[in-house]
Amino acid sequence: MRIPILKLYDYLLVSVQVELDDQTVLQFQEDLLKKIHQEGSSGVVIDLTSVEMIDSYIAKVLGEVVDMSNLMGAKVVLTGIQPAVAITLVNMGIMLDEVPTALDLEQGLEKLQLELEE
Amino acid sequence: MRIPILKLYDYLLVSVQVELDDQTVLQFQEDLLKKIHQEGSSGVVIDLTSVEMIDSYIAKVLGEVVDMSNLMGAKVVLTGIQPAVAITLVNMGIMLDEVPTALDLEQGLEKLQLELEE
Repeated sequence: MRIPILKLYDYLLVSVQVELDDQTVLQFQEDLLKKIHQEGSSGVVIDLTSVEMIDSYIAKVLGEVVDMSNLMGAKVVLTGIQPAVAITLVNMGIMLDEVPTALDLEQGLEKLQLELEE
Repeated sequence: MRIPILKLYDYLLVSVQVELDDQTVLQFQEDLLKKIHQEGSSGVVIDLTSVEMIDSYIAKVLGEVVDMSNLMGAKVVLTGIQPAVAITLVNMGIMLDEVPTALDLEQGLEKLQLELEE
């Protein structure tokens, strides 16, 4: 199962609408980094609105995806983190510090624009 | 397998990045119409860049999706139709007349804007 990555102008948009398992999230990591390289994208919005649950491994991989994308020169904004996911993340001590977040895709894009203008 | 549908402002964006089978395309039809109703979207871009092959049944369902969306008040633009898909469609006598098309997602969005301004 691959998570589709949309290119929109300088950005990549990802809406995760499947439950994430280990295999899927690793494949996503690889696909996203390749796509950033291919398209020379300056920013990525990853929308997690449809993700109901997350475990520590998936949170760790997502955190790494953000770090790796940043290293490659692309800012990442996570959007639509649900209450249950936020609770799980904080309970597990995973803060995803320094990762910009926003309520939804639109606000994520605006945040990205702001971050890139800084 | 469900095809993710992204809401971006007044529009819905769909990037089909799996091979379409009968079940998937019917599920997509249902999901898209529901989402148009839910979000009150005025336009939809369906990007087929990653679709390498299409058969007559899938083409028929896609054509119907466009008609149904139009009936509900949402304009649809198809983008990224590959050479092989275009050849198959024309050889099968399916012209998807009157369906606006564009090269990629960005041009699809611009076309949608133009269509809606008319």
